[in-house]
Amino acid sequence: MTLSQPKPQVILVECADQPGLVHGVTGALLDQGANVVVNQEFVDRVSQRFFMRTEFDGNIDEIAILSRLRIILPEDAIVSVSRLEPKRVVVFVTKEHHCLGEILIRNSFGDINARVLAVVANQPDLGAFVDKFGIPFHHLPVVEGRREVQEDAVLSVLEKYQPEFLVLAKYMRVLSPAFVSRFRSRILNIHHSFLPAFAGGRPYQQAFDRGVKVIGATAHFVTSELDAGPIIVQQVMPVDHTHAAADLQRSGRDVEQMVLARALSLVFEDRVFLCGNRTVIFD
Amino acid sequence: MTLSQPKPQVILVECADQPGLVHGVTGALLDQGANVVVNQEFVDRVSQRFFMRTEFDGNIDEIAILSRLRIILPEDAIVSVSRLEPKRVVVFVTKEHHCLGEILIRNSFGDINARVLAVVANQPDLGAFVDKFGIPFHHLPVVEGRREVQEDAVLSVLEKYQPEFLVLAKYMRVLSPAFVSRFRSRILNIHHSFLPAFAGGRPYQQAFDRGVKVIGATAHFVTSELDAGPIIVQQVMPVDHTHAAADLQRSGRDVEQMVLARALSLVFEDRVFLCGNRTVIFD
Amino acid sequence: MTLSQPKPQVILVECADQPGLVHGVTGALLDQGANVVVNQEFVDRVSQRFFMRTEFDGNIDEIAILSRLRIILPEDAIVSVSRLEPKRVVVFVTKEHHCLGEILIRNSFGDINARVLAVVANQPDLGAFVDKFGIPFHHLPVVEGRREVQEDAVLSVLEKYQPEFLVLAKYMRVLSPAFVSRFRSRILNIHHSFLPAFAGGRPYQQAFDRGVKVIGATAHFVTSELDAGPIIVQQVMPVDHTHAAADLQRSGRDVEQMVLARALSLVFEDRVFLCGNRTVIFD
Amino acid sequence: MTLSQPKPQVILVECADQPGLVHGVTGALLDQGANVVVNQEFVDRVSQRFFMRTEFDGNIDEIAILSRLRIILPEDAIVSVSRLEPKRVVVFVTKEHHCLGEILIRNSFGDINARVLAVVANQPDLGAFVDKFGIPFHHLPVVEGRREVQEDAVLSVLEKYQPEFLVLAKYMRVLSPAFVSRFRSRILNIHHSFLPAFAGGRPYQQAFDRGVKVIGATAHFVTSELDAGPIIVQQVMPVDHTHAAADLQRSGRDVEQMVLARALSLVFEDRVFLCGNRTVIFD
Repeated sequence: MTLSQPKPQVILVECADQPGLVHGVTGALLDQGANVVVNQEFVDRVSQRFFMRTEFDGNIDEIAILSRLRIILPEDAIVSVSRLEPKRVVVFVTKEHHCLGEILIRNSFGDINARVLAVVANQPDLGAFVDKFGIPFHHLPVVEGRREVQEDAVLSVLEKYQPEFLVLAKYMRVLSPAFVSRFRSRILNIHHSFLPAFAGGRPYQQAFDRGVKVIGATAHFVTSELDAGPIIVQQVMPVDHTHAAADLQRSGRDVEQMVLARALSLVFEDRVFLCGNRTVIFD
Repeated sequence: MTLSQPKPQVILVECADQPGLVHGVTGALLDQGANVVVNQEFVDRVSQRFFMRTEFDGNIDEIAILSRLRIILPEDAIVSVSRLEPKRVVVFVTKEHHCLGEILIRNSFGDINARVLAVVANQPDLGAFVDKFGIPFHHLPVVEGRREVQEDAVLSVLEKYQPEFLVLAKYMRVLSPAFVSRFRSRILNIHHSFLPAFAGGRPYQQAFDRGVKVIGATAHFVTSELDAGPIIVQQVMPVDHTHAAADLQRSGRDVEQMVLARALSLVFEDRVFLCGNRTVIFD
Repeated sequence: MTLSQPKPQVILVECADQPGLVHGVTGALLDQGANVVVNQEFVDRVSQRFFMRTEFDGNIDEIAILSRLRIILPEDAIVSVSRLEPKRVVVFVTKEHHCLGEILIRNSFGDINARVLAVVANQPDLGAFVDKFGIPFHHLPVVEGRREVQEDAVLSVLEKYQPEFLVLAKYMRVLSPAFVSRFRSRILNIHHSFLPAFAGGRPYQQAFDRGVKVIGATAHFVTSELDAGPIIVQQVMPVDHTHAAADLQRSGRDVEQMVLARALSLVFEDRVFLCGNRTVIFD
Repeated sequence: MTLSQPKPQVILVECADQPGLVHGVTGALLDQGANVVVNQEFVDRVSQRFFMRTEFDGNIDEIAILSRLRIILPEDAIVSVSRLEPKRVVVFVTKEHHCLGEILIRNSFGDINARVLAVVANQPDLGAFVDKFGIPFHHLPVVEGRREVQEDAVLSVLEKYQPEFLVLAKYMRVLSPAFVSRFRSRILNIHHSFLPAFAGGRPYQQAFDRGVKVIGATAHFVTSELDAGPIIVQQVMPVDHTHAAADLQRSGRDVEQMVLARALSLVFEDRVFLCGNRTVIFD
């Protein structure tokens, strides 16, 4: 996989807000002869946290700039300097193909900053499709009431790939809190409603029953509470009385697919910060 | 108030579905020499109810066509033939002016098929503004814990105006079930979220706390269950991490105002049918 | 390829408007014992043309109903009764993969009512990708200034497949009027702007230079006049000053892909009528 | 008119890009003890221009900070420090009331950072409406072929009010280049199409004839070339074959009204920079 453009270097900073942070970071870059391409910062007024993402070029020594930043920034600051290497990713699916298809095509052509290492499925249906793309497919079925057995099998598979992110691309199983806690802030999910409306199962049927005039999809980080993690991207589409529940489901796929793809682009380019249960996104 | 165009005649039909309904209604119109301008029909598969709205011209005798339709249609059919006379409306407000302002301007220029007869408020603030438009303003404050006293005062005022519809244009009080039941399917409300998300109070604060990436507004009929009535119009707008709760509130006003205005247009032109807790809308 | 649901039967009617058309068609269906599922009709006031699309079930004899309709309808009426067989389609591409990828995945899983018979390309790049899907790929390069030679080669290939529709999925060549006239109303194109803005080449650069705040895509039928044929679907997305021309191009792909997919769904389910240079769409 | 919140102080900077600009400005603020609330910056890669908008509080002496900034910034820098005083505005109209109504209501309640000093009209129709709001109304009719006579009358009226901005709220006359040049970058217009599509007269009829599936509105700065000035805000809405040209016009008003209101909010809070024929907007 090749991305067409040379990657910029990126600084990410997160810390308690205090005066002079932007001045300090830009000073450090200036001293090193770096050329700032894009600089974005935000202070969350509720938590008084400071977030900054700076792209620069100039082929700067990352160790040197990092050392300098550690001196300038408060002790608790989370800071990194990197070149946006493609993220290592494993995708989880059940039977639906639309989100998976979008990811595999983008992966094939280097449209997202990631490498899909494998697909894990709790149903066998999508195996032949994944094979077309030369990606390993692991069918790990769930025996009802024995979720932990399957999750152990999944963990064994993941051990091999060492992924940075797990992407639930319409994986219709709830992961255990124990599993989720091993990948804190590293599991992404697409939920087929505009959360917090219609959390849980059968959101399109719920939407039909409530008679809503818009449906939507939500890409979010997974936490131990179902469908309650930090939201990354949401979009909606208009619907009307002519849409039965099955029509909502069919139409909604387009939104799900694009919302998830958009979220992956943002996360994999290090544009998303967590701020409590909310996200700060520099796009 | 004048509407610029001559009003068409409109037939509305609602009944249990059975074969031949469209054939029957169009046949009745054909026999009377009516010229159908727009014909819309829908069968709800869940309830097996049939809905039809037909605009025609030709200056047809309404009594004659109605008699004919009553013969053709099943006995339980709800059927009407009318000329879309402007609806008689009373608007309810608290302190916010944006939805009220939109309604009063549209009312002044005949943009909606209605006559605003009066404004009822539980706070005095908007009195001077309403006066500009020469519309009676009734300030009927609520004494805490004595809701029924105020509602009696409201009923006395409404007695005088005999409105067909009550429009809650950011009226920040919950009406009693007794009050609501007197105006079944005739009270319209604008709620400042995309329902069913964030029902109840302070939806923008709820939206901020949840970290959503879209906010919205919902116009719906009022039922005895809070924010749970049939939805007429919903729209959303994108937001991001830079929006504090107060910013969401400010930005959301534009959506609220337009969603309510759109719902009023639809309802006052007899384009909205109730179908259980959902709406069938011929726009 | 299998579509999951049994296909309904569909009547399509187009003719000069006159009184009694809906009455006549519904009467014919009633006599045959057909059960109308969805009935949609429209009269274009400019051209005084009548359009109707009716889905019904009941396993009705198509010849019988057609004969009956020919008697009832005016002589010039265009009328058909069918079962929505999958359309035979050839896709044309150059180098970009996103629209093609969407089509091939939908084709693989039977999401659209079509069979993709082959892909024709004027560049070789996408051959390996198309191979994954087991679809024939024909690389037919254009020698500059000799368009007609390549078009002859294309026609030879098409001869073999006898497609009903040609889909230009980012095919970056203008087809000759002679070629277009052979497939009148049967060539679909995706143009990467909200037409009529930015017709012709490099629309994203044009959009950047003009400083627009929305970009979009347009799916339309191809006519002999460049980017001027009847529009089927258009959508837009917001952009801002941070988008360079290359960013607009990248972001715009998502819209292009979904607009084309949506247009194909509509056309291949016989939901699109031509009305002069406009379209009447029953969705 | 009162705005509910105390106004922040705002620094605006525009100059040729060079290293160290952000570092310099933030350093100057730090030295003065200012507390930066929001900091936004952008470098346009085409023109290599730098733009910055910084909100801060701390009750800083504006002269002192300005002197400091002039030393730090390049000589050609355009720099200002202010407290966002309400802008002095004159509104121009013809016969349509919807954009004017929105502006007058927002003006009454202090929703926009402006004071509407007067309304200028080339038709008398809206006089009574404007009177309700206690705003002077100047009817200055155009004698066909004598545009300059009317423009002289307009200039006399404007002389009295000394407005900072002129807002064309559906003013259906083209201003002369001489007039426009007197108010360079200070005249705002709402055009009822998504420019550059359908510039000039009767855009809804043009949109109908072209058969588009979205209509829109564009707020832009007026330049001597018709409908070609820098775009501030654009939005669209979906339409279909059932919309006659008059329906497009009616539906489009909602978009026009909100697009213009949004543009005024942005411009009057000093969030809009010009960058050639494009705008840089810090919202």
